[in-house]
Amino acid sequence: MVISGFSGAGKGTLVKGLLSRYDNYALSVSMTTRAPREGEREGVDYFFTDREKFEETIRKNGLVEYASYCGNYYGTPRAYVEEQMEAGKNVILEIEIQGALKIKQKFPDSLLIFVTPPSAQELKKRLEKRGTETPEVIARRLARAVEESEGIEAYDYIVVNDHLETCVEEIHRLTEAAAMTPARSKAFIHKIREELRGFEKGAN
Amino acid sequence: MVISGFSGAGKGTLVKGLLSRYDNYALSVSMTTRAPREGEREGVDYFFTDREKFEETIRKNGLVEYASYCGNYYGTPRAYVEEQMEAGKNVILEIEIQGALKIKQKFPDSLLIFVTPPSAQELKKRLEKRGTETPEVIARRLARAVEESEGIEAYDYIVVNDHLETCVEEIHRLTEAAAMTPARSKAFIHKIREELRGFEKGAN
Repeated sequence: MVISGFSGAGKGTLVKGLLSRYDNYALSVSMTTRAPREGEREGVDYFFTDREKFEETIRKNGLVEYASYCGNYYGTPRAYVEEQMEAGKNVILEIEIQGALKIKQKFPDSLLIFVTPPSAQELKKRLEKRGTETPEVIARRLARAVEESEGIEAYDYIVVNDHLETCVEEIHRLTEAAAMTPARSKAFIHKIREELRGFEKGAN
Repeated sequence: MVISGFSGAGKGTLVKGLLSRYDNYALSVSMTTRAPREGEREGVDYFFTDREKFEETIRKNGLVEYASYCGNYYGTPRAYVEEQMEAGKNVILEIEIQGALKIKQKFPDSLLIFVTPPSAQELKKRLEKRGTETPEVIARRLARAVEESEGIEAYDYIVVNDHLETCVEEIHRLTEAAAMTPARSKAFIHKIREELRGFEKGAN
């Protein structure tokens, strides 16, 4: 499952909420060639690497998806995703739309969720409230949000993050709903069909 | 929204559960040319009519969908559906797959739910438990279930009716999830996009 959304929509807090409240989620950590920012930890926020190693990982098919953004590579390491999926986890990728679309293409069963604040005004307020960003950075993030908003229709669901706890629960329910689609219930459909055909043969 | 499912899956009880527990549902009553069965009430189970009047209703575009099944017409009267939708209700159509597919074609935003018991064995048991049906009728219903099972993939969601209360809640949550799709959030998306663009203009 992919969680995207405007910078300031509260994705990080939501993901933490999902991981702490339910035990069937795992968070994928992206690999990037961009330099660590203050406070970012290796293996927690990102796996930091250089261009050469990133390109080697691409060649070895070691990434589920990757994209280039502002001159840096960002990608999702394959091994962790596959391992956690085999363990029955919903693997969360907190990535941008470029990556999200690639995931959907490769995994049509993936669940794409876009998180948004209740209004643009609220988004602006949240960005200003952080107090750590200059007006220029805020303006840039809002401009970026305009671009991001163009891609919303590609997502399966739009979740309005108005109240954190409610929103965490909504996302959890969306993953439960997703499990009920025919594409994800193939084994069940096959089984009940075979059983029903068995009755028919037995009756004749 | 359409609720279909095997005869014996418990659709009727589920629909009653939805109507009694939540106030945002309305049940559409079908029109049919088949004769009333014992205990069936006009305007509650069906609107009973004759062939001539049914065909007149078709000509007057008075049906959302209709299908012919075992020599009888079955259709969904348009007026009630439109009126209840305008009142903000989720209108439930409890119809067969033929009708369900026509609804999906006409209303791509419709929600198609297929209800099934946890296993074919359980379906057989439930049909036998009713005690009112002859072995021939049960065999015919099971044969019909085989046919119905062929169409499951056309539905948006498959809900396993194992426990009534849980199942009613699951269906309710599916309608909530459906409301979060981009196709059903057009007004919200449009609004936030316009607001964001407004900030951008304001900043330049």
